[in-house]
Amino acid sequence: MKVTINCDMGEAFGIYRFGSDEALMPYVTHANIACGFHASDPRVMWQTLRTAKAHGLNIGSHPGLPDREGFGRREMKVSREEVAAMVIYQTGALQGFAATEGIKLSHIKPHGSLMGMAQRLDHVAEGLADAALALGLPMIANADCCMSDVFARRGVPFTCEFYVDLDYDDDGRQIITKEHEPVSADVVGGLVIRAVTEGLTRSINGRDVAVTAQSICVHSDTPGAADVARAVHTALRDRL
Amino acid sequence: MKVTINCDMGEAFGIYRFGSDEALMPYVTHANIACGFHASDPRVMWQTLRTAKAHGLNIGSHPGLPDREGFGRREMKVSREEVAAMVIYQTGALQGFAATEGIKLSHIKPHGSLMGMAQRLDHVAEGLADAALALGLPMIANADCCMSDVFARRGVPFTCEFYVDLDYDDDGRQIITKEHEPVSADVVGGLVIRAVTEGLTRSINGRDVAVTAQSICVHSDTPGAADVARAVHTALRDRL
Amino acid sequence: MKVTINCDMGEAFGIYRFGSDEALMPYVTHANIACGFHASDPRVMWQTLRTAKAHGLNIGSHPGLPDREGFGRREMKVSREEVAAMVIYQTGALQGFAATEGIKLSHIKPHGSLMGMAQRLDHVAEGLADAALALGLPMIANADCCMSDVFARRGVPFTCEFYVDLDYDDDGRQIITKEHEPVSADVVGGLVIRAVTEGLTRSINGRDVAVTAQSICVHSDTPGAADVARAVHTALRDRL
Amino acid sequence: MKVTINCDMGEAFGIYRFGSDEALMPYVTHANIACGFHASDPRVMWQTLRTAKAHGLNIGSHPGLPDREGFGRREMKVSREEVAAMVIYQTGALQGFAATEGIKLSHIKPHGSLMGMAQRLDHVAEGLADAALALGLPMIANADCCMSDVFARRGVPFTCEFYVDLDYDDDGRQIITKEHEPVSADVVGGLVIRAVTEGLTRSINGRDVAVTAQSICVHSDTPGAADVARAVHTALRDRL
Repeated sequence: MKVTINCDMGEAFGIYRFGSDEALMPYVTHANIACGFHASDPRVMWQTLRTAKAHGLNIGSHPGLPDREGFGRREMKVSREEVAAMVIYQTGALQGFAATEGIKLSHIKPHGSLMGMAQRLDHVAEGLADAALALGLPMIANADCCMSDVFARRGVPFTCEFYVDLDYDDDGRQIITKEHEPVSADVVGGLVIRAVTEGLTRSINGRDVAVTAQSICVHSDTPGAADVARAVHTALRDRL
Repeated sequence: MKVTINCDMGEAFGIYRFGSDEALMPYVTHANIACGFHASDPRVMWQTLRTAKAHGLNIGSHPGLPDREGFGRREMKVSREEVAAMVIYQTGALQGFAATEGIKLSHIKPHGSLMGMAQRLDHVAEGLADAALALGLPMIANADCCMSDVFARRGVPFTCEFYVDLDYDDDGRQIITKEHEPVSADVVGGLVIRAVTEGLTRSINGRDVAVTAQSICVHSDTPGAADVARAVHTALRDRL
Repeated sequence: MKVTINCDMGEAFGIYRFGSDEALMPYVTHANIACGFHASDPRVMWQTLRTAKAHGLNIGSHPGLPDREGFGRREMKVSREEVAAMVIYQTGALQGFAATEGIKLSHIKPHGSLMGMAQRLDHVAEGLADAALALGLPMIANADCCMSDVFARRGVPFTCEFYVDLDYDDDGRQIITKEHEPVSADVVGGLVIRAVTEGLTRSINGRDVAVTAQSICVHSDTPGAADVARAVHTALRDRL
Repeated sequence: MKVTINCDMGEAFGIYRFGSDEALMPYVTHANIACGFHASDPRVMWQTLRTAKAHGLNIGSHPGLPDREGFGRREMKVSREEVAAMVIYQTGALQGFAATEGIKLSHIKPHGSLMGMAQRLDHVAEGLADAALALGLPMIANADCCMSDVFARRGVPFTCEFYVDLDYDDDGRQIITKEHEPVSADVVGGLVIRAVTEGLTRSINGRDVAVTAQSICVHSDTPGAADVARAVHTALRDRL
């Protein structure tokens, strides 16, 4: 069974740097590029897309809530129509740059609290499905939640991801925090292999919880991000 | 010789209304839809595109400077790369909604001071040309300025427009103001016919200045906008 | 017992108009001026403050969530510290203009979902209390909710308000909608007198629910707003 | 003759870090705190003000153009009234936090292109003067330009500053760039002493140009900023 490694990229903004995208690109198969709502701006998007293309990555959009100050990590009460519209807008904007570079986007992966809300709230998951179907793009999503249920029912193709650098609660949901805690590159390989082969991970309370690890997500702002990504890549070498 | 009538539309934002798009649609051939930088938001864009489609209009993007507070009518010192990137981003976003509705965009028309700067500043005109060529879309532009010179040299197809509801200075440039002054529907027909057939209009100082009127622009926020648009449509009926 | 009449004002933004502030000023005792987060901009704030001063009104701040697209009417997950900081920032900004005109602010009234969240969520109410105590200003608030409980315990002076142009649910909470429905000026006088003298109003389900009407709120974007405000003013003439 | 050392601070934003404010504070006398338009947000402002207070610094506002994406370093065509309003708004917001901490602001220092434009454009300098007089605060400014002329005529108290980490052109104006170039801490002492005692510095073309160095500006995002600040502080020890 094949696995992919995805990473959120292009989350700089104006004069502000964020993460170390280029250092991670050798260890990643899919780049999720931020689209200007929770982070990024048109020049950062264009530049990130070019760099990801040079590394031969699959490129998808990484749309977020319209809240740069909160980096898309503060939940907002948005309607299904607002969700669909913000995802189409942001993904379309990235498609503009992709067309300019002769690339087709490969997927959509919602960012932060947009993803988090879609795990719990039907109308948010439906809005994401509306956008994915309208644009004809598959999603990267989470297993066993509103999102995967709605996508399965609506016929939206999706890949379930496992976060190697986030904690999980006892319901098997990743815990979204404002800043990412350091994670040891030493334990990452074991975590990933267990998630991929056994479909299990340890929650913050020490319980084994089920996860579906068709794609492994690494974050570029986790301390030691490149080491973590390299360890994931090494562990999965034969499955990529 | 054929003439078109274009109008900037979808310039509402959130709870704020702007202009009377639907009242003008019967008298217009091309809708330039705002893209979220100087005005509009994803839901307004989507809704405006659907309404314009229902009226059978040609639909283009209307990208502006990133300045909602100034409605894109305050000049900003932007680089060629920033201009190209902001036009690709905004046009791409609209293409996202257009794809959703099975439509292809027909053109790009820069908004406000982005247009105004491109008439005087080579690097702004070059940035617009970069975007138009990258996206493969023709432009609506102005005659006898940086913009038309650059577009001609770079091979960007474009249509020159005449503003029926703006004043012109002695150099034949439209004068961009924060709010549009009323214009009498009675004089509009004559103005338009003169611009189309003689290539002349009267400047604010009473001089005849040369204009190229391949497309007539009407604004939806000019007082009496629908009457003005109807008068233009009536005057040009046999040339549309 | 004295009653006041308050109105949210200065909610225009850039080129966009909103409400008819000046038409309402003769019928109002307290102006709550928007501060640039959910609506308004520095020029609108300054101009509104001058006009309110010319009408002799008490002037307070009307801080909202940082979401112009949603007009502060979409809930956001914000921390107590974020609430305190956004209220101090916005109120301070208005104090800047007030100082310029030789005025002292009289109160703070949170806007839209910031108010709505403070009715249900302790940490939001605590953040508002932090700001009010730090700035030494009384609040306009709602009765029988987190907000009034927290304010009473913390020693924040406050006035409870009754919304003459919003519906109430069976818990006695006003229902916040994106746009305000029309309300008949004919029924307003009776509504207000009942709320003030009996402390009761009718919920959307037809139940009598308790309200505390120390200040009556009228909205400038309700259709027929000036008529509604005049009717409230007439009904309360002897109590103002 | 006394000299001061000022530094722009609090230019982080949301999740984004910027500069190393705290490392510079021991070497600085005046902190200019960004106010949320070109950089910063309410929480960053509050936190920076508290830290500057703990270091016993004089605290002023650092208002910028409303352009986070361009970090206030892209000129915008703004009116005198817009300039005055944006400075009052931002300074008032900082005064809100200052009041909360029992502090009075000591000055205003415009940021980036707002400062740059005020050196060349009378109406921008007049707008700054309007704000300074309305708020009763002195300015940090530049010598021999519109700004100093207007401030002298209008009676706005001001201190002229010298930038130790920016290049100067042959007219004695600092050259504003998007990112700051490294400057050697070794040469800084000599530069500063020459500027303070002789009133001269070397332009990028090798010409001696007149400068007025009543306050020395160091930037927190210049590579090696703390070393530069320490060198300035050491060189000026007896004059602070």
